[in-house]
Amino acid sequence: MNGAQALIRTLVGAGVDVCFANPGTSEMHFVAALDSVPQMRGVLGLFEGVATGAADGYARMAGRPAAVLLHLGPGLGNGLANLHNARRAATPVLVVVGDHATYHKRYDAPLESDIDAVAGSVSGWFRRTMRTSDVGTDAAEAVAAARAGAVSTLILPADVSWTEGAEPADAAPVPPSPGVDDDAVRAALVALRSGAPTVLLIGGDATREPGLTAAVRIAEAAGARVLCETFPARLQRGAGVPAVDRLAYLAEAATEQLAGAQHLILAGAKSPVSFFAYPGKPSDLVPQGCAVHVLAGHLDAAGALQQLADELAPGTSAPVAPATRPTPPSGDLNAFSAAAVIGALLPEGAILVDESNTAGIGVAAATAGAPAHDVLTLTGGAIGYGLPAAVGAAIAAPDRPVLSLQADGSAMYTISALWTQAREQLDVTTVIFNNGAYDILRMELQRVGATDAATPGPKALTLLDLGSPAIDFVKIAEGMGVAARRVTTAEGLAAALTDAFAEPGPHLIDAVMPSLLSG
Amino acid sequence: MNGAQALIRTLVGAGVDVCFANPGTSEMHFVAALDSVPQMRGVLGLFEGVATGAADGYARMAGRPAAVLLHLGPGLGNGLANLHNARRAATPVLVVVGDHATYHKRYDAPLESDIDAVAGSVSGWFRRTMRTSDVGTDAAEAVAAARAGAVSTLILPADVSWTEGAEPADAAPVPPSPGVDDDAVRAALVALRSGAPTVLLIGGDATREPGLTAAVRIAEAAGARVLCETFPARLQRGAGVPAVDRLAYLAEAATEQLAGAQHLILAGAKSPVSFFAYPGKPSDLVPQGCAVHVLAGHLDAAGALQQLADELAPGTSAPVAPATRPTPPSGDLNAFSAAAVIGALLPEGAILVDESNTAGIGVAAATAGAPAHDVLTLTGGAIGYGLPAAVGAAIAAPDRPVLSLQADGSAMYTISALWTQAREQLDVTTVIFNNGAYDILRMELQRVGATDAATPGPKALTLLDLGSPAIDFVKIAEGMGVAARRVTTAEGLAAALTDAFAEPGPHLIDAVMPSLLSG
Repeated sequence: MNGAQALIRTLVGAGVDVCFANPGTSEMHFVAALDSVPQMRGVLGLFEGVATGAADGYARMAGRPAAVLLHLGPGLGNGLANLHNARRAATPVLVVVGDHATYHKRYDAPLESDIDAVAGSVSGWFRRTMRTSDVGTDAAEAVAAARAGAVSTLILPADVSWTEGAEPADAAPVPPSPGVDDDAVRAALVALRSGAPTVLLIGGDATREPGLTAAVRIAEAAGARVLCETFPARLQRGAGVPAVDRLAYLAEAATEQLAGAQHLILAGAKSPVSFFAYPGKPSDLVPQGCAVHVLAGHLDAAGALQQLADELAPGTSAPVAPATRPTPPSGDLNAFSAAAVIGALLPEGAILVDESNTAGIGVAAATAGAPAHDVLTLTGGAIGYGLPAAVGAAIAAPDRPVLSLQADGSAMYTISALWTQAREQLDVTTVIFNNGAYDILRMELQRVGATDAATPGPKALTLLDLGSPAIDFVKIAEGMGVAARRVTTAEGLAAALTDAFAEPGPHLIDAVMPSLLSG
Repeated sequence: MNGAQALIRTLVGAGVDVCFANPGTSEMHFVAALDSVPQMRGVLGLFEGVATGAADGYARMAGRPAAVLLHLGPGLGNGLANLHNARRAATPVLVVVGDHATYHKRYDAPLESDIDAVAGSVSGWFRRTMRTSDVGTDAAEAVAAARAGAVSTLILPADVSWTEGAEPADAAPVPPSPGVDDDAVRAALVALRSGAPTVLLIGGDATREPGLTAAVRIAEAAGARVLCETFPARLQRGAGVPAVDRLAYLAEAATEQLAGAQHLILAGAKSPVSFFAYPGKPSDLVPQGCAVHVLAGHLDAAGALQQLADELAPGTSAPVAPATRPTPPSGDLNAFSAAAVIGALLPEGAILVDESNTAGIGVAAATAGAPAHDVLTLTGGAIGYGLPAAVGAAIAAPDRPVLSLQADGSAMYTISALWTQAREQLDVTTVIFNNGAYDILRMELQRVGATDAATPGPKALTLLDLGSPAIDFVKIAEGMGVAARRVTTAEGLAAALTDAFAEPGPHLIDAVMPSLLSG
């Protein structure tokens, strides 16, 4: 068999059976080989950022990597932003970048570029397979490295792919995580028992039910507070799940949340820093004099918290969020009434893919008592993640409804994900928070002190405006085969959501609302 | 003044007065500073690939660089594919990548990544400005380096941008090109006078009228043939311009064009190589035993050709293409009838941005005698270049009609360029060659021998199909504010083109036609 066939068989053998693809000529043998391995599903994206974002969303829900097939350096470049988000989420992703044949590279053909440099910037594991006989073992190692929570990138030259003589390899062992460190558990115990104000900041694998339960048990027993990292990869929440607040995006608000803490225990989360720098404001958000304790990394956080909880408060359980929903509001749509409608209607077991940015300000509170659900967030700050991640989440969990909350500006980065949603008939409901502006940048323009609040100039404001011309997401969605409607009232949003949740396949709701900053 | 203000003033002083921008928080001081420098025009793109492709198209027509403002590493990643094309075109582009404040980088905030590695892969000149006092001189050097025909990348940390104490710098001298090499001219003369079959392959600055005239004079005098590189950055052609054929994309066809040559003289073009490798076929397209002579690089090709022409054939002139247009066809639309309609109607002075790929197969022949026009092509093979390049070309040459011939699959990579066309009310007519498939990949699937012609599997074919669901470009365009209509006949295309050329502002024509490969 040729290299491509061995590669796909190795992937399937290692549990990778979905490939999000945007192929080109150098990947044609991989494409042709798909028909010889029925277990592998190929999913076409019309842009590489859709494929990489889908792989991120998929693995966050499936708990195992998908493959992504990209075309040479420019294809990798197009997919880079969502690989950045995956890297920040510690999502397992297997990237296969097709390259020119080994002997062709020296000719510097038009598509030749430094793939290795670009891949290296985002990959925890990286290899260029130079011989067909190595394809199987390289692929097995790549999958294992991905499963340890990384973007793994395998560069596959076209001739290595098309040459006969390859064999599939067995799955390789996944490198073990560092494991729970007893010394770190003891140090956290000492801090928690000190009686001094303590914050437990959780992330990584601790933002799902077992970790949340342990964290809340600890907090209850020690009088500590629990916060979740600002942008968790996958946060379980809602009725019946222990509730934790997220650390705020705005450094000013995060500083208030952390104020007074004398101990900060990190369980799967990084020490808190400001998302951006602002003139005259600190980057490091740890309060003055607060001791920072690293309890565990992102793969061992839940285990460490459970061990800590059992030491500190054996036999206890954690209080959970009560089932409660907002009263469905009526009248004009705005960020808060839209959130209330969503809270009132969120289906059981939903996957909420959140790239709503400023306009989603009310969603967390409004959905706190909705039926249990998962929230996937923008871990790396590279916008254009939401619509693709919804594709991947829906493919990973076909029996669960996906609600994709999407800011208008960010939606346009990877808008063709809607086409893949239509093609695969995915059960995704997209709500565009359409306020006609990069509202977050209007806010940041003031926060960075670039202008007095009263004096941004017209040219600056023009670069943050999406209203000229207004973007008609209904037409765009319909143009890609997704049923869509526009709503301007809370009742309209409720009716549209109800219909979308009841019907199979993808839907888009263009929720037109005022900017939060336009008065 | 702060760093951002000094940067913009330096750019304007060096002749850079358009900035294609997709900014974020770290660029807010740059954005705010735009209002203090009235000469600088800011043009918003909804995706970084639109901004970089627009800068490429702009500079190809304006002959001087635009600036591109990008947000950190992910923004650069999103813009990388079109920077790759610009690099291959030797287009002058000044990229400003905003970065975290110098003191903020150590905190590894979510958007932190290795910008330098990614920028290095595409930049001829690269610098990270570390002090506000250096902004002016660094910017001046960056512009000068870009003007020598390169992507210049300046990384601007947020604090360097916002800190006071900067001064604009005067324009820096542009590094000189190597110039015309008399020895190379003599060697070419010897080859041309040898009487042996000789091909003159031209590119770089030789694909405009002076270089074309010189090349054709040489060919006429010496009995040589002239070919233009396969993907010229900017090719002047049409009635009144000396006509040259382009080297074919398909290696099989290029090999025929070059067959029998004993001398190959390169004037601004690289030695011909196959675009991709194919099993059992050579990468190097130079015929066996053919001597290759490098006459000049891409900046000196026209000058070298003129010197050579004046030595070889003093006082001669070159024959030019006669004015002739196809008869407008009628009936069903296909690749050839569409080309004939375009040839019949192309306006005087048009800029033809060509990313029509397979479906554009008939366009070159059909427009050979149309009024003189410029053709911009996909120099680096990274698709998604056409719609953005049309934005830039229209801004560079507001008095000239832009005709953007666009393959359906490639259009979807940077489709939001249509919004910028609407926002800026650019005189761009986009014709989507909508055949519902990645036709070029259907062809390549067979060419690489991945399958027998008769046996591609259904999964493989699915990944090359764009028809499920069909993409409705009319709705997509209207959703972004561009007037659009669908045509399925030659008469319909003619009527739509006539209207689009007559009315100001952008128009899109969704030209639905059969695939060339579907029978």
